[in-house]
Amino acid sequence: MFQLDSGIIQRNPGEAVRVIQSAQFLASRWEASVRRIRYAVAASLDGYIAGPKGEADWIVMDPDVDFGALFEEFDTVLIGRRTFEGMARAGQGALPGMKTLVFSRTLRQHDYPDVTIVAEKAAETLESLRAEPGKDIWLFGGGLLFRSLAGSGLVDTVEVAVMPVLVGGGIPLLPPPAGRTGLELTGHKVYGKTGIISLQYKVK
Amino acid sequence: MFQLDSGIIQRNPGEAVRVIQSAQFLASRWEASVRRIRYAVAASLDGYIAGPKGEADWIVMDPDVDFGALFEEFDTVLIGRRTFEGMARAGQGALPGMKTLVFSRTLRQHDYPDVTIVAEKAAETLESLRAEPGKDIWLFGGGLLFRSLAGSGLVDTVEVAVMPVLVGGGIPLLPPPAGRTGLELTGHKVYGKTGIISLQYKVK
Repeated sequence: MFQLDSGIIQRNPGEAVRVIQSAQFLASRWEASVRRIRYAVAASLDGYIAGPKGEADWIVMDPDVDFGALFEEFDTVLIGRRTFEGMARAGQGALPGMKTLVFSRTLRQHDYPDVTIVAEKAAETLESLRAEPGKDIWLFGGGLLFRSLAGSGLVDTVEVAVMPVLVGGGIPLLPPPAGRTGLELTGHKVYGKTGIISLQYKVK
Repeated sequence: MFQLDSGIIQRNPGEAVRVIQSAQFLASRWEASVRRIRYAVAASLDGYIAGPKGEADWIVMDPDVDFGALFEEFDTVLIGRRTFEGMARAGQGALPGMKTLVFSRTLRQHDYPDVTIVAEKAAETLESLRAEPGKDIWLFGGGLLFRSLAGSGLVDTVEVAVMPVLVGGGIPLLPPPAGRTGLELTGHKVYGKTGIISLQYKVK
């Protein structure tokens, strides 16, 4: 059905167009079905995802943010080692209902049975993960993991909930030095009760 | 007319309310007439106002941004020494039609006759400038001047045109370490042609 020999355009131009359109339709469905890796974080207006001591107390909770719906979009979470250790200290290990991958060359798998430690070949691991069926993949943080994965072209979207605050220092959204990354604004939403503005970008 | 002795509320409640309302009206007019110091800049999503080498080539020009209207809101510009030297190197001295104050302890006034060098008592200078009649005052940059003035409670608004790009390093919007500053989102505008999103905040 999808054989397109070189003579078909001459012999039957209408059929050639139909075949190409079918192939494009399938390609677009395939593209839509590939799981995206999405860096979705809260950040201050000056570009930090945590304060100088890892503080998150400046992150406002707006009653209109639908965390349930957000969590529903993902089934897998990617976490950098430092962020994971911060979460572990706070008594938070794997996220409930999510497959959790922690990127670390030093943590040992048997110490953390609830998560999968990825010690090497991060890109290959993610490429094969993306090829499996499933929901989107949440790049939860931190900034160093984002920098590494973005540098390998593995991040599809950057989604920042900009909090109405200047934190003045801390863990950057993207720690310097990093390469320049072009973005395309694909959506935004204002949360009027708190002044959070959520920005969605596609990585170019 | 604005004497409000302690007995008036008992003697003539209606008159007391009228007096208070008049005073509130005048107070609100006075507040509106005070010139605001506004930090209005373009920044990358990761919080830089210039690239690692001072680059501004990532700043997109959207045809729908009305720079004429923006310039009309100001008659005075505040510039830090480094930003001014960058502008001077680019052949740009004072901004046309604006009173330009450059904050520097090292530049000499007679070398820069088109601008006013403020070497000391920045806060006092700005307090008295603000008390004069005039339009709003544009804190043009850089980040160090903003940090210094914000630390003295002298900045009224932060207005950021967020460019759709991660620059990866450079001159921060607010160089760390800085104190935490609460903000109130007062407005936003999306420029659809380029994906710039302009955010206006009042400093709390």
